[in-house]
Amino acid sequence: MESPSAKFDAEKASSFKVVGTRPARPDGMDKVTGRARFGADMVMPGQLVGLILRSPHPHAVIKSIDSSAAEALSGVKAVVTRDDFAPNDDHADVLYNIMAREKALYEGHAVAAVAATSRAIARKALKLIKVDYDILPHVTDVDEAMSPDAPVLHDSIITKGVSPTPTKPSNVVARSEFGHGDIDAGFAQADEIIERSFKTAATHQGYIEPHACVANVGADGMSELWCCTQGHFHVRQVCASLLGIDVSRLRVTASEIGGGFGGKTTVFIEPVALALSRKAGRPVKIAMTRDEVFKASGPTASSSMNVKIGVTKDGRITAGYGEFRYQGGAFAGAPADFGAMSAFACYALDNVKTEAYDVVTNRPKGAAYRAPGAPMSVYAVESVIDELAARIGMDPIDLRLKNAAKEGARSSYGPKFGSCGLVETLEAAKAHPHYSAPLGPNQGRGVASGFWFNFGGETCSNLNINADGTVTIAVGTPDIGGSRASMCIMAAEELGIPYDRVRAIVADTSALGYNDTTEGSRVTFSSGMAVIKASQQAITEMCKRAALMWDIPAEAVTWEDGYAKPSGPNAGDFEPLSLAEIAATAGKTGGPIAGHHEYNADGAGVSFGTHIVDTEVDPETGKVDIIRYTVIQDAGKAIHPDYVEGQFQGGAAQGIGWALNEEYIYGDDGKLQNAGFLDYRMPVASDLPMIDTVIVEVPNPGHPYGVRGVGETGIVPPLAAIANGVSAAAGVRMTELPMSPPRVLKAIDTAKIAAE
Amino acid sequence: MESPSAKFDAEKASSFKVVGTRPARPDGMDKVTGRARFGADMVMPGQLVGLILRSPHPHAVIKSIDSSAAEALSGVKAVVTRDDFAPNDDHADVLYNIMAREKALYEGHAVAAVAATSRAIARKALKLIKVDYDILPHVTDVDEAMSPDAPVLHDSIITKGVSPTPTKPSNVVARSEFGHGDIDAGFAQADEIIERSFKTAATHQGYIEPHACVANVGADGMSELWCCTQGHFHVRQVCASLLGIDVSRLRVTASEIGGGFGGKTTVFIEPVALALSRKAGRPVKIAMTRDEVFKASGPTASSSMNVKIGVTKDGRITAGYGEFRYQGGAFAGAPADFGAMSAFACYALDNVKTEAYDVVTNRPKGAAYRAPGAPMSVYAVESVIDELAARIGMDPIDLRLKNAAKEGARSSYGPKFGSCGLVETLEAAKAHPHYSAPLGPNQGRGVASGFWFNFGGETCSNLNINADGTVTIAVGTPDIGGSRASMCIMAAEELGIPYDRVRAIVADTSALGYNDTTEGSRVTFSSGMAVIKASQQAITEMCKRAALMWDIPAEAVTWEDGYAKPSGPNAGDFEPLSLAEIAATAGKTGGPIAGHHEYNADGAGVSFGTHIVDTEVDPETGKVDIIRYTVIQDAGKAIHPDYVEGQFQGGAAQGIGWALNEEYIYGDDGKLQNAGFLDYRMPVASDLPMIDTVIVEVPNPGHPYGVRGVGETGIVPPLAAIANGVSAAAGVRMTELPMSPPRVLKAIDTAKIAAE
Repeated sequence: MESPSAKFDAEKASSFKVVGTRPARPDGMDKVTGRARFGADMVMPGQLVGLILRSPHPHAVIKSIDSSAAEALSGVKAVVTRDDFAPNDDHADVLYNIMAREKALYEGHAVAAVAATSRAIARKALKLIKVDYDILPHVTDVDEAMSPDAPVLHDSIITKGVSPTPTKPSNVVARSEFGHGDIDAGFAQADEIIERSFKTAATHQGYIEPHACVANVGADGMSELWCCTQGHFHVRQVCASLLGIDVSRLRVTASEIGGGFGGKTTVFIEPVALALSRKAGRPVKIAMTRDEVFKASGPTASSSMNVKIGVTKDGRITAGYGEFRYQGGAFAGAPADFGAMSAFACYALDNVKTEAYDVVTNRPKGAAYRAPGAPMSVYAVESVIDELAARIGMDPIDLRLKNAAKEGARSSYGPKFGSCGLVETLEAAKAHPHYSAPLGPNQGRGVASGFWFNFGGETCSNLNINADGTVTIAVGTPDIGGSRASMCIMAAEELGIPYDRVRAIVADTSALGYNDTTEGSRVTFSSGMAVIKASQQAITEMCKRAALMWDIPAEAVTWEDGYAKPSGPNAGDFEPLSLAEIAATAGKTGGPIAGHHEYNADGAGVSFGTHIVDTEVDPETGKVDIIRYTVIQDAGKAIHPDYVEGQFQGGAAQGIGWALNEEYIYGDDGKLQNAGFLDYRMPVASDLPMIDTVIVEVPNPGHPYGVRGVGETGIVPPLAAIANGVSAAAGVRMTELPMSPPRVLKAIDTAKIAAE
Repeated sequence: MESPSAKFDAEKASSFKVVGTRPARPDGMDKVTGRARFGADMVMPGQLVGLILRSPHPHAVIKSIDSSAAEALSGVKAVVTRDDFAPNDDHADVLYNIMAREKALYEGHAVAAVAATSRAIARKALKLIKVDYDILPHVTDVDEAMSPDAPVLHDSIITKGVSPTPTKPSNVVARSEFGHGDIDAGFAQADEIIERSFKTAATHQGYIEPHACVANVGADGMSELWCCTQGHFHVRQVCASLLGIDVSRLRVTASEIGGGFGGKTTVFIEPVALALSRKAGRPVKIAMTRDEVFKASGPTASSSMNVKIGVTKDGRITAGYGEFRYQGGAFAGAPADFGAMSAFACYALDNVKTEAYDVVTNRPKGAAYRAPGAPMSVYAVESVIDELAARIGMDPIDLRLKNAAKEGARSSYGPKFGSCGLVETLEAAKAHPHYSAPLGPNQGRGVASGFWFNFGGETCSNLNINADGTVTIAVGTPDIGGSRASMCIMAAEELGIPYDRVRAIVADTSALGYNDTTEGSRVTFSSGMAVIKASQQAITEMCKRAALMWDIPAEAVTWEDGYAKPSGPNAGDFEPLSLAEIAATAGKTGGPIAGHHEYNADGAGVSFGTHIVDTEVDPETGKVDIIRYTVIQDAGKAIHPDYVEGQFQGGAAQGIGWALNEEYIYGDDGKLQNAGFLDYRMPVASDLPMIDTVIVEVPNPGHPYGVRGVGETGIVPPLAAIANGVSAAAGVRMTELPMSPPRVLKAIDTAKIAAE
């Protein structure tokens, strides 16, 4: 289908009837009553239990795998290893990650899998598989991995983006560079320059639901897969490729999802379950344990960074520079580029340069995590901005306002900004009572801004008008943040009917055209636009039907508030016909009425946010409490404000965990020491204050309702805002995350010693 | 969407590449390997077992139901009775049938239902329900039910279609009349007149899979239903109405279906399971036993008929008259009208009149069964035709040819016939070696023709082009006869790609617009046309994409054999682009490529068939063997000839059972005596010869490929053909079905006595 005319419709936006209301979420009841069916909740007749054998070593050559004893065990129906997957050029790393090939590259790397009639038998079978390893030295830290004498994971990695091209393999996948102007000249204009180094730990998205799936491959290759995922079309594409089958032969249904946050945008167990099912000739269910989730799904990158910024005394940033080194686990793809591109995106700078390094280590391959790459780089930049503001004695919001990115400014990553709302969030922050509230002893206030791109992508929607005047919408983007409610709101708005007359479902891959994954804060924008366009197509058809019933030309019918009305010379000739009236007779006027839309959406409109946080540091233990937290973010237009606020709060909550406690802790043996929620410390409700939110609405000119993506920007400012708050409270600049009690205490003590 | 231009495309039909081939059926492997998931194969977490309490009496007032003891039983989560369903004007009879209200109207009528944590508990609970019945006299025979002093089932039934309107209720729901001309004048012209009475027994479709479903109603009313059905959209409509919810709130998925033949076009257990689930707050599965299938699903009507036909000596039929009395069980809706309309449909008559009576009795409410109503009336008419041919010494095929319906003739039920193929089947029958093969002792050959209307109806299809050049089709008509294969063939033909690049699925009710039920031989025609039109829409879009890639106008691109080609002034300027090439870059040229079609199809083109059968009668036992059987039928165009032949053979096999052995046997107590496959004698493989088939192809002018419905006509001639064969072999005219050994023996003996 043609790309829609997607201009913001200011007149429509001035009189929304449904958009902006807060109906109960359609999946809410299911989730609180336990009815929602998640990845592990599908049962297929005759299904087997699939379990995966994982490497105990962070780095080892797999000399041989002997699965004969396991295969001989009664009740074992299939064993698969690397030999069961043909090499795959399109998804070589994914294949290597889901089933180790020549080497095990991290503790937890899948080495073999079994399908058996019971969990007990499957466990026993795993123990019977003999793997002969040749243990190699390992590396898990990004800086160590970049050193010339580090153990090298892949002989095939020759660093890209450096000149001359290296002659030897290393762990550095690529170096990228972004920016414009002349930073040397910029720094020369500066009155004050601060340069600092920062480190952040790898963190996990921490979704409640472990990965789970049921795969069923028929004797004729016709296959189906039920799984929890953010993108079942992507899962279909990758799994079909890894299995060597047409995508039409694999039907993937996305279950309800118990959290994803980017971590469910790729495959881990799905191709393994399919391979087991193909071999066993029976359905196979695999559900990860929490231990497996930590060790073998995709956390975000840890980082090591240097940032240098220069300002004039009156607060003009003359130059910004950053080097961002991200390790993304055992395979290429750390979000270093996104980090480098986002780092200075809040500022309109004449001179800016960022460098990104994508580095591999002996850790699980990272996956996307909410605004991938941005929180770390923004943490570094916003920390230095904060310090510079103090240095020149300027209010930190004023310093940001003075340099803020706005419409027409060239972004630090290339394109010029269109209409955007950073200035509005900064002004709202400055005016917010929180910003001027008094602080107590050992308390400090931090502020930081953040940016995210927001993606578009391929998107489809079908909309069907039912005979009773209700409407069913099928979208292909799994609902991870309330999108079904937003889709219903937008269809109801466009069609002019009440919200509760519309129901949205997530269709399986065989019932709808290809949809990109639910990621990049793209869904409310992209699927929403597809729903609006499908609604418009249905309206056109309903006007035709009314014209047929009235025997007047279709052009002489207009749609208004849920009714077809004769217009022009025919105005008033007939009683308006409601959607329900037209639907009731659709069979007689030509058949069912539907609307469809397929397109590739442009980006969902950049978004900016500014966070204010009050922290309190216990000087004796180093424990940090979050006393007050306010998120101010531009949503473009909040379709369902509850969900928008929920996204703001969720981003902040995850950012708080990342800033204060969460980290992958590796021992010298290269093994993860805290693969469970008791030792991996995520914030719980009692750790957090109520997170206040302010929705700023600067309409996205590229969406009829003004929608921007909102899901990710909220996790970008917290690391920096909290670090600025803690630094203020503790009286010492915190340059490493998480700011766990020992680390804060050490920083306080070190500062004390230095001051003495 | 607008109704398609659906003219037969003779040029295209002359060069089919995929249509007419015989690829392996897509559901075949699943079914033979046990992977296919039928109605009882869905498992939802926490599901309960639902069982139904049924009336032991054929006719009784239900004075009271006390379910308190059942409700108190530990493990029982819900009990529902008539009190749990609000009266429903739109589906009053359906409601009364699925759960008895003031009276139990047949043995097996549902009276209450329980949902419990185990089958054992549910059974125990059923026993604890106390129903206080006031037993009434009953009637199960159609002629007895019509008598003035018969027990009356419904006080509300005042016979329609008779004048004056009766003043008292009776069991005769309605009388209808069809025909034209003056039959008295016609009979006056006849040289020979034969008038006879006939009876046929009620038979069951005998599908292998008992009705089964899983229902799940959320606390917010959002509901889902998994069930084996021929029409999940119809199930949604009816169940939503009975539950009093919007149709958008009920999502119905059709399971694989283990036979339907019309018997799965309505609801029995589905609303009960939903009501139980709503009350229990948990999913509920109900699966009928075979006993329940016989007693409480929908067999076809039994009939009592009078037929009178006059012919001239040279074989011109001067008049035809028939009275057809059908009992359809406890509620209105016996297919008497269809019977009366079909009875003389094979003949172009000047004077014809048929009368139909729809009668209720204390039997389970009938459902559709393959060409509902036609086999019985055609049995009667074709028996008399056969007898008349003998009387005037004319070959029975010649007699039929002389009077055969053909294009332009006024049908006995009203409209004029378009292009149709009765003459062609008769000529093919006459020329077939079977018709002139020698017969042995005690053998007789029968021939008969038959007709079915073939329906159209509301139909939708979505077609999606996948990135790898494969194609996925979603239709909304459950595949009961191989339609997925036919859909793939037609899409492949239209798109110009191989069959195995296309996969068709049956979408659930939330993913597609409304589809009428798979019935009336409508699917290959209607869903097929929707698929062709969706393919054409996708082709138009692919041509646009190619034009975009070539930077030429879309009008300058044509589609040929799976390729977009520049045409006109641009011909030869660019290399043709294949579907796969266009699909691979669809993301860059505008997004996913799809085609959609929604419409209300006209009828699928009348079809006629002629059957030849050789029977052998054992004069000592009355047992009849089918020695040879040939089906000759007009398919319009056989999309997948294997399936067409399968339909022909299936219709004949079911007809053989109906003709020879199958019958609902009621005792004087009004109870069914043979509710099981041991006592209800269906033909098994060893009972049947290989059934030969001849596909005649007289294109349907109303379909681009010439398709007609083929599924039902095949069951119309067998009763008559076999009766004619048995009458010939036994030397006595058989006027009652089934021609079971005792009945045949009795006829032979009676004839002997009469001859003595």
